[in-house]
Amino acid sequence: MKQRINFITIGVKDLGKMKAFYRDIFGWNIMKDTGGIVFFKMNGLILGLFPEDELAEDIKIKNDGAGFKRISLAINFHSEKEVDEVFEELNQKGIKVMKAPEKVFWGGYSGYVSDIEDNYWELAFNPFLEMDANGNVLSHQ
Amino acid sequence: MKQRINFITIGVKDLGKMKAFYRDIFGWNIMKDTGGIVFFKMNGLILGLFPEDELAEDIKIKNDGAGFKRISLAINFHSEKEVDEVFEELNQKGIKVMKAPEKVFWGGYSGYVSDIEDNYWELAFNPFLEMDANGNVLSHQ
Repeated sequence: MKQRINFITIGVKDLGKMKAFYRDIFGWNIMKDTGGIVFFKMNGLILGLFPEDELAEDIKIKNDGAGFKRISLAINFHSEKEVDEVFEELNQKGIKVMKAPEKVFWGGYSGYVSDIEDNYWELAFNPFLEMDANGNVLSHQ
Repeated sequence: MKQRINFITIGVKDLGKMKAFYRDIFGWNIMKDTGGIVFFKMNGLILGLFPEDELAEDIKIKNDGAGFKRISLAINFHSEKEVDEVFEELNQKGIKVMKAPEKVFWGGYSGYVSDIEDNYWELAFNPFLEMDANGNVLSHQ
């Protein structure tokens, strides 16, 4: 699997306050604000703020305040086919699949796997994401 | 503050098994393995695996299984002076400081701040880390 990270998504309780914190206290520029999710472009990857309940729902787990760290990491690929191939390879190695890849509401194709200590990795194709040859994020439409 | 992420550190329960998972299941190359911490070089940043109790101790918080997400994010700067300046600026904005910057055992200079929902950011100078002009990690001695 590609050795890279394209998104870090922090599950938040209060999206408005957290957006203001990163914008005003850290002084960071907002790349995109859909009203439901806020993206900051970092060095070759994107930091996302997303309501924690919605993040849990996306991973298909319960946000019960115990195991779920309310953070996910994502690796992006260049096509749905590539995502399927990665899942097949990981399946053969016996990985725990949280959600098999499927078409998702935001227009992409995404699934989740877990490592052995409940850290969740989203493996996705995002048609709105532009990456360079090394997998660094250049832009997000 | 620089808009970048140089380290994602996952606090782990079993370092040996987690190292094996990322090496064998994800198929990733280990950049450095000190016996106490394992680094994977990603795109412009490093993923670290570090025992969760030690991570909590580094941040000066309790690993009580409740609030602490057992993940930290780090931004690296080019000197101790730059770290001090960033802390001073954030202090003036009223940020919650977990640990004022200090010389640390691994030879660097590091402190931690928290956002308003208990996500911890390490702000550090690491003399062993080589970054390009954009703050992308090139190597770690």
